[in-house]
This record gives sequence, C-alpha cells and structure tokens, in this order.
Amino acid sequence: MITNSKRSKVKAFDSIDIGRIELHDSLLKRRRDVNRKRSLPHQYQECERTGRIDNFRIAAGLKEGNYCGRLASDSDVYKWIEGVAWTLASDEDHELKARADETIVLIEQSQEASGYLNTAFIHHPEKRWEDLENGHELYCGGHLIQAALAYKRATGEGKLLNVAIKWADCIDGYFGPEAHSGTAGHPEIEMALVELYRETGNTRYLELSRFFGKMRGQSVLNGSRNKQDHVPVSEQTTVEGHAVRQLYLLAGLTDLYAETDDAGLLENLEKQWVNFTTRRMAITGGAGARYTGEAFGLDYEIPNRTGYYETCASIASFMWNWRMLQATGAAKYTDVMEQVLYNGILSGVSLDGEKYFYTNPLEHHGDDGAVGLSWRNIMNLGSNRRTAEHWDRTACCPPNIARLLGGLPGCIYGVAEDVLYIHHYTPNTAVLNVEGGDVELAQKTSYPWNGIISVEVWPQRKQEFSMAFRVPGWAKGGKIEINGETVEGSVTPGIYKRIERNWAPGDNVQMDLPMPVEKVRAHPRMTGNSGCLALKRGPIVYCIEELDYPQDDIFSLVLPEEGEFVPEYHEDFLGGVAVIRGEALKASFPSEELYSSELPDCWNRTELFAVPYFTWANRQAGGMRLWLPVK
Amino acid sequence: MITNSKRSKVKAFDSIDIGRIELHDSLLKRRRDVNRKRSLPHQYQECERTGRIDNFRIAAGLKEGNYCGRLASDSDVYKWIEGVAWTLASDEDHELKARADETIVLIEQSQEASGYLNTAFIHHPEKRWEDLENGHELYCGGHLIQAALAYKRATGEGKLLNVAIKWADCIDGYFGPEAHSGTAGHPEIEMALVELYRETGNTRYLELSRFFGKMRGQSVLNGSRNKQDHVPVSEQTTVEGHAVRQLYLLAGLTDLYAETDDAGLLENLEKQWVNFTTRRMAITGGAGARYTGEAFGLDYEIPNRTGYYETCASIASFMWNWRMLQATGAAKYTDVMEQVLYNGILSGVSLDGEKYFYTNPLEHHGDDGAVGLSWRNIMNLGSNRRTAEHWDRTACCPPNIARLLGGLPGCIYGVAEDVLYIHHYTPNTAVLNVEGGDVELAQKTSYPWNGIISVEVWPQRKQEFSMAFRVPGWAKGGKIEINGETVEGSVTPGIYKRIERNWAPGDNVQMDLPMPVEKVRAHPRMTGNSGCLALKRGPIVYCIEELDYPQDDIFSLVLPEEGEFVPEYHEDFLGGVAVIRGEALKASFPSEELYSSELPDCWNRTELFAVPYFTWANRQAGGMRLWLPVK
Repeated sequence: MITNSKRSKVKAFDSIDIGRIELHDSLLKRRRDVNRKRSLPHQYQECERTGRIDNFRIAAGLKEGNYCGRLASDSDVYKWIEGVAWTLASDEDHELKARADETIVLIEQSQEASGYLNTAFIHHPEKRWEDLENGHELYCGGHLIQAALAYKRATGEGKLLNVAIKWADCIDGYFGPEAHSGTAGHPEIEMALVELYRETGNTRYLELSRFFGKMRGQSVLNGSRNKQDHVPVSEQTTVEGHAVRQLYLLAGLTDLYAETDDAGLLENLEKQWVNFTTRRMAITGGAGARYTGEAFGLDYEIPNRTGYYETCASIASFMWNWRMLQATGAAKYTDVMEQVLYNGILSGVSLDGEKYFYTNPLEHHGDDGAVGLSWRNIMNLGSNRRTAEHWDRTACCPPNIARLLGGLPGCIYGVAEDVLYIHHYTPNTAVLNVEGGDVELAQKTSYPWNGIISVEVWPQRKQEFSMAFRVPGWAKGGKIEINGETVEGSVTPGIYKRIERNWAPGDNVQMDLPMPVEKVRAHPRMTGNSGCLALKRGPIVYCIEELDYPQDDIFSLVLPEEGEFVPEYHEDFLGGVAVIRGEALKASFPSEELYSSELPDCWNRTELFAVPYFTWANRQAGGMRLWLPVK
Repeated sequence: MITNSKRSKVKAFDSIDIGRIELHDSLLKRRRDVNRKRSLPHQYQECERTGRIDNFRIAAGLKEGNYCGRLASDSDVYKWIEGVAWTLASDEDHELKARADETIVLIEQSQEASGYLNTAFIHHPEKRWEDLENGHELYCGGHLIQAALAYKRATGEGKLLNVAIKWADCIDGYFGPEAHSGTAGHPEIEMALVELYRETGNTRYLELSRFFGKMRGQSVLNGSRNKQDHVPVSEQTTVEGHAVRQLYLLAGLTDLYAETDDAGLLENLEKQWVNFTTRRMAITGGAGARYTGEAFGLDYEIPNRTGYYETCASIASFMWNWRMLQATGAAKYTDVMEQVLYNGILSGVSLDGEKYFYTNPLEHHGDDGAVGLSWRNIMNLGSNRRTAEHWDRTACCPPNIARLLGGLPGCIYGVAEDVLYIHHYTPNTAVLNVEGGDVELAQKTSYPWNGIISVEVWPQRKQEFSMAFRVPGWAKGGKIEINGETVEGSVTPGIYKRIERNWAPGDNVQMDLPMPVEKVRAHPRMTGNSGCLALKRGPIVYCIEELDYPQDDIFSLVLPEEGEFVPEYHEDFLGGVAVIRGEALKASFPSEELYSSELPDCWNRTELFAVPYFTWANRQAGGMRLWLPVK
C-alpha cells in the first residue's frame, strides 16, 4: 500500500518510516489499535477456518487435499501479512509476528523452483496463465510482492522478499514484448513491480510494469470496458468499469509516471482524476455507482440507496491519491485521501474490528434489505449489517482495510530536501530527518473532532527549513500562529501553507481551522439529491439513523434552511465521536399514496441527532440517511 | 390481451366486441392507426428479416436450416397475429389479413400430430420440456392460444384456434397432478388457458391453469424469487422479481379468481396490488426498478435515471388492472390502466410506429448513455433513442404494444345486466346491448387534452338502465349535466358515478372534468425525488427535453413553488399534443465541484416548455427530466 522507497524520478517528498512515528490517542489510533488487537488475529483465524492457509499447506505438499475457495484467495493471506508488517513497524506483537513468520515459511515452501507461486494452479501447471482475465495469478502475485516489501521494510527480514523476487523473475521470464503478451484482469501487479524496482534497482521490473500497462486497450482482455481494456491507457480520460480495478490501475500508472516523468501520462491521469472527483465520486469518497459490474456509472450517476461504493474501491482511491500526492505535492489529492479515509473507508469495518461492509450505500431503508434476499440481492442494495461472512466468499475488503490501517502512519508526513510536509493531522510524536538533522515533532490535536492543531518543533539545534502545513479544502478562515504570533499571509484552503524559518527547539506552531457544521449541497446534475443537503464537519460526513428516532420516521424529517447545527463530543459513544444536534422539521404527509398533489400540512419540530457516517449500523441494523431534504 | 368472453363466475361486466366500436380522431385513434399502417407491416418485415417466420418454414419442413434466434421468438409472431386480429376487428386491411392468414397456415403446418408446437424444439424432441425455467415453451404456447382466440373472435376464422386447442391438449396430456409437475419460467400460459376454457367450456384448461399456479413456491423453478417461485402464490403479498413475469402471473391469477370466486385469492391479489401501486410503481405506471433481473426493487426504490420500466411491464400492468377491473368493477384499477397507457406504454413506441424503447427511464442526461457502451450498458441506463434493433435480439415489446393498441377499443366500455360502464374517454361511436336492447353511444371529447366529455345516448326507444361514468382519481371538482341540467350529488374522484334513468334517444350527458396542471409530489420515502415535483395534467405526465432549451442547462432549471403553468394544444406538434408553458428559474451554480456549501446565487427567469413524457426523444436524442426541483 505504502510506497516509501527513496528512489523515484519524480517525487515531491519522501515518505517516512512508520517506525519513526508514535501515534497518540485519537480516532485513528483507536481504529489502528482495534486493527492490531482484534481484526488481524480474527482475520488469521478466518483465513485458517476457510482453508486459505490450508491452500498453502496443500501447495507445499504438507497436507492432502485440493485448493478451495475463489481464485483470489492467496491475496487475502498476502494482504494480511502486509497488514501485520506495517503494524509491527510501530507496535510489538509477538503473537502476530509468530503467525506471520509461520505463514511466510509456508509460502516459501509452496513456491516452485521455477518461481511460480499460486496455490490454485501450483498442482495444475497446464492451467497456469490460461485465463489472465479471471485467473487472478498476477493479482495475487502483486499482493505477494507488496507484502514482501512491507515485511522487509517493517522487520528487516527478507525471506518473503526472496520469494517475491523469484516470483517476479518467473513472470518476467514468461511475459514481455519478446515473450507472451497479455495483462492482468485485475490490476495490482503494476504498482507492485514498480515498488520492487525501487527496492532492488532492477529495471526489468519497471519495464515489465510498463509492458503490462501498455497491453491495455489491445483487446488482451476481450476489449472489456469493465476491465479497462477498451482503450489504451494513454487515451483514457474518464474512470470506467470495475471501480477497484480502475483505481488500482491508476495507482500503478501513477507509480510508472513517478519513475518516467512522462508529462503526457500525468496529463492523462489528471483528466481521469477530474472526471472521478467532479463527476463520479460519492460525498464519502466512495467509488463505483453500480452493483452491475461493481462499476462506475456515467457522470453524476451517484445514487444513495443503490450505490455500490465497495470498501476496496475507497481504499484504492486512497492509494491512488497518495501516489498522486507523492508525485506532485498538490494538496487536492490529500483532501481526497482524507475525505475517503474518514468516511468511505472507516465505514467498511465495525467498531469491534471483526465485521465488514463490502458495499457502503448512502442510504438504507431498514431491515428489508437483508430479509429473505439472496446474497446478490443484499449486495445490490447494500446491507445494513456488517458481517464476517465475506470470508466464506470473496474477502478482499477485510485484509485491505487491515493493511491500510496498519500503514496509515506512513502517510502523515513527508520530507523533501528542506521542506517538512504535514499531510494529515492526528496526535503523534515523530522524528523526521531534514537535511541530515533529526527534527522531533509533537503534534497535539483532537482532530478530526476539532480543528485546533499544535505542533512543537524540536530540531537538535536551530535549523533553517520550511514546514508545509496542509490547509484542508474545507477549512475556511484558518489561522496560524508561531509561539503566539500570527503568521502573516492568508491561509488558503486546499493548499500547503509553507513557513520558512530558522526553527528553534520548542517552537510552537498553532493552527486553528474553524470547523463549523457545513450544509453541503450536491451539484444540480446529481439529480437524486435535488433539494437536499448533507451535514459535514471538517472531514466527517454525518448521517441519521433510525434507532435514534424512536418517535419519528427518518424519511419524514426535513432540515430547516436556516437551521443551526452544533457538534457535541461524546467520549463514551461509538468509540468517541462528535455528534451533531439541532432542529429538524417533521412533515405529516397526507396519505400512503406514492404521488400526490397535496403538500405536507404539518411541520412539527423535533430534535436532530446525527452521527458520523462511518459509525452507522454499529449499534443495530436499521434505516439510515445521509442526504436530507431542506425546507 | 383482451378478455371478452361472456363466461366467468365473478364478473362486474361484460366487455364489448371491438367491432361494435368506431373510434374517431383522437390521440388513441392516431396511435392505433399508426399501429395498423406502420407498426404491424414493419413488424412482419422484421419477423421475416430476422428468421422468425423462417423458423416456422423450417419447422414445417418447407425450408432447410436450423432454428435461429432466442427461445421466445415464436411468441413475437403470435403476438403480431394477435395485434393484426384486434385491428381487423374494426378495420379492413386486406394486406395484413393476407399476411396473417399465410402465417397461420405455416403455423398449422409446423404443428406435430401430437399437438406439440415450438419451432425451437420441433426437430429436437429430446430437448422438449427439458428447461421449463428458460425454455419458454409454455410462454410461446400461451401467446399462441391468445392469438388464436383473438383471430377467432375478430374474424370468425377458427383455423388457428384448432391448432391452439391441439396444443393445449398436448400440454394437458404432459402436465398435471398425475403427470409431470412443473410450471412456466415465464408466466403467460395461465391466462391463456383460462380464456381458452371460457371459449370452449372445457374445464380441463381451467384445471391446468390452476395447476400451473399451484406449482409455484414448490421450488419447481429452483425457488427463484426473480421467477416468483420463492413462495406459494397464496402467500405472496409483495410484487417481486422480474416485473413482466410478476405482472403476467398476477393477470393469470386474476383470471383464475374470476372463474373460482376464491375470496382468499382476491385478498392476496389486492395486497400485491397495494404493494405495487403504493410502493413500487413509477409515476408513468412503469414497473421494475432494476436492470439487474429486470426486476422490482424494494419499497420506494423507484429511481429516475437508472429505472428499468420495461415497456412490456407497463403493458402487463395494464392487462392485470383490466382483469382486476373486470372482476371487481372498482375504478381504482381503471385509473392505473389510464396512468400506464398514456405514459409508460405510449412512450414505448416512436410516433412513426417503427422504433421502440425497451426501457423507459424517467430521466436521461443526454447522449452519453448510448456512446461506446455495450448493449447491456445501454439497457442499464436506458437509451434516449428508440430503435428497431430489438428485432435482432429479444423483441418482446414491439408486438406487445401492437396487440395492446389493436385491442384497446375493447376496454372502453362494459355492460353488466342493466349498467352501461364507460371506463375510458376517447371519441367514438359504439353500439352496446343493454338487456337485449341496442343502445348507440356517441362520445365526443378531446380527451386526454381536455376533460369535457359529451355522450349522446341513443336507445332504440326509451329504456331504463344505469350508466356508470368513471370519474378519474385525478379529477377534482367534476360536474355532470344531462340535457343541460346538473346531475345531483357529488362527483367523487376515483369512483364510477352511476346515473339511473329512463334514457330517451338523444339524451346528452356532459361531463366536465377540470384539468388543471397539477404539481405532483412523490412520497417522502421515495427519497430520490425529495424537493422535486412532476407536472401532470389529467392522465398525462410531462417532461422537459434538452432540445427545447438551447440556451439553458435543463439540470439547472428549478420550478417556482407558486408558479403558474398553462396547457397549450398544438395540432401540428408531436402528432397533436398539449404542451405546458410557464415560468422556470435558472440557477447559477458556483462551480464544477460535486459537493459545495455554497448556494446557487442567481435565479434568472426563463420559460418553461414541457411535453408529454410519452413523446420524448421523438425529435432528437438528448437529455430529459420528469421530476424537477422546486424552490
């Protein structure tokens, strides 16, 4: 997930080793701690229960039996290892490490002398590479490489990396301009190979990644638009098809851009980014409007109730925007990272860390979505119950969240020559190396629950450098003080505010980003939200849940145009969140008729109680709304 | 389509032979004339071009070759014959009759001595009845029976009916409690068999229909909810799954109710009707929210842009409501017939009669839906171009519209003992037999473009009987006069207003149903339309089309809450329609951003120009909106 190699032709900054950052109590630390203590152990159990680990035992000849499960099952194990790796980078956990080490031994034993490694095909050589469109060999292999790099960087241990290199050499021997053509039905290998090149310096991996990218649009995947084979990547200007595939591909292409500095490619990536963020992205950062094909819809097709917004697609957007940020240093990408992290990603996992949403709709009408309908139907409409059932089928999202939360600290800071970037605000202490000198930072804040951020800067001695503080796009009227004195110049939303200074140990930077409750409107072409607004505060999008309205029908609630809405922090509620309170109107509708020319005739007042979208359905299943009509 | 047999255990009235009604110039007559002059000849050509007729030649051994096309292809030919039949009932057309007669000879020649008849399986006896779920044998056979009954009733010629009876006997020999079990993957046979029973008096057909109904919910179709096999029909209370299948099934069950007077069944049908009309029906009468499975969604899942609303599902709703009306005499069913006819059905065919919509979405964002996307994708979002391409694939809708328009005159009147019902208003003269005496009626009106209806009543001599005038549900403040004198008592919307009288030749009844432009709101649970209204006048739902707004973006238009909207009839526009004019507001939105807390800051006025929904996309492809935000 995280790229943190120093190598790159184009790079705005270097990212930071997770081991140099210590998170302090906050929303993100709590979620990351649950990830370590609950999610990762539970995910291993599920991998074991569902045969995903046995697949490796069988491949290694340690157990009798046949491969079981879907074709991408190996990737779940690799993603779990990556999650463990980034976790171990900052937290000791002997139990997790022991499990990971055992699993790595199994993986090593499963690999063929040729380097080939995929437990579904290891005993069926005749079927290898037969179905690039759906076989998921390159996809699983990409995750193997990423897990191996993470484990090496986090623990210094290279056993899995050796396996990954043998595997990469195996595919490099099979594919290429002079060998077999083809590309992966599900992108992932592209970014993995670039990162392997960064680690090893072996340009064959970079060339192979470029080769897989160039194959697209040449009907190697039957010209599938869903699999981004409908046009060459250099001609694609809109995000299309399967949202996870599309965004993984864009992440890989961004890695390629970073190593090649191809201006045409950047222009092309930027066009797709504009299409995504101004035409096809949910307010939660969610991607993929449609159940059919788990795919992007057309422009402004961003439905609430039937929207798909797979958790993996949110994670993919985070990954892509992180790469665009690394390559360009533009704060607009950091904004999208933040938007999707606090809404469309965190919503994917329960507060207890063991249940998951695969889809993240923006509205649910209650129990009906889950009663008596088949699995497909539940996915079509989105469920209002997170479950662990995914492990019995496709379980891409759970370990994807695990590796994302594990790697999160690595995205907080960045260091260019003499610029220290702060991308994300969350309390922590960190030691960053700026031009050879270690600078200790102590970030104190209750972010995202309020916008006051204090950063103490401790160079070893007085040191001249810049600090670049991200001013989020939503933050209007922000102020910055240093040692109590206001910094001159405007604090423009959506940029990095640079402060050049000869920093003295103990200098204190105080940012105040006002965080009123915002009434957000959707673009008028997003017609399903005409006359509605969403409540948002800082990066957090809110929703209302049926269970908080025992007396009212949440679908008869209307927000007054001039209503005042105030936040209220509750330490003991939903793991510690700010809720929003205010006044709502309760309309009495004249009848059960679907269509009527009569207006609601009664507007009683009632109390509004809204919770962060990412926390919904953690207390009980029920109805939920994010977009609310306004009067 | 039309049931007009006298037989039935429960029946509010008898329907009328089409031959006794002569339509005069009106919207419906114009559409029906285009159907005869353009659609039916063109449909025959397409059946010939695409091998549908050849399939019969090959089956009959008159031509070499193999069956081609999808498995329901025979039904298209049968539906075409039914369309021709009902047309011939009122209009001479030697060309059409000759074509139909030739085709009937071919069909007869294709039938096996056993009675079996299906061109896909006639040369593959081993495959017959192998796949009831998807084979469409019973579905095609049902259409054969309906076509045969129509041809007999319209022309008096029984050749096709003999074929149909042999076929019905063949399936009766194969299926039954003591023989093979199973039911049809696509309902249709149920209503066909009941009508065949009505024609012949042979109770075996009634019993067989009942048998097919009772099989459902016993996992004979793998328990498919999409095919209504998830519960026994006696336990189903909501409309589910494939909309056309569901509504065809309900039509057949209503026919069974009419012959059995089973109160439990009626109660059950009524529950499903309430679920359909108050939870799952578009304002156009359209049914089936989802592309996936062409299926009903959950309650209040009635999307605009991605709604499916197949033309055949609209027709199926018309057929079901016609049967419910015949069985009960309740005007609420007539209201739904009218709603779906003038909106969701007429929209399915182009004004020139040769191009069709398969799906009828309530909103389109312009050209994008048709560019570069596969056929499946086009169907997912609905196209904004009617085409004749359906003939190269599944062409269920085109001949379904043809038989509906052909049979339409049969739904205008009904006669019970001493009550003459007027269900639908359209100019015509008709001769109806009331208690043995012929009564001539002359209905004059510009309906649906205005609500003034004059009916001259000409019994042969003074005759005492009731007339029941339907007062549409939308008609508030209606008045009725007889010979210039106001009839006492209220004219309540949504009922049949009965007038008992000793009618003298030339008595004139004048109804005045005020037809203001209505601003219709959707139920608040239909959240996609929060803050929006639809314009409706009488039974006609309106929309706005991009091409009428060369200066404006139709997605920035907003209707003023207090706006006045006036109709304006144009004889030479879109085949003769009333448009709606009035004032709209044009919002200037601050940016391209998808989500913004800034409000539109400029509300210029512009002219509203709305056209009947059913006429959209007849001038050029482009954007369209039905639900408009209100301010």
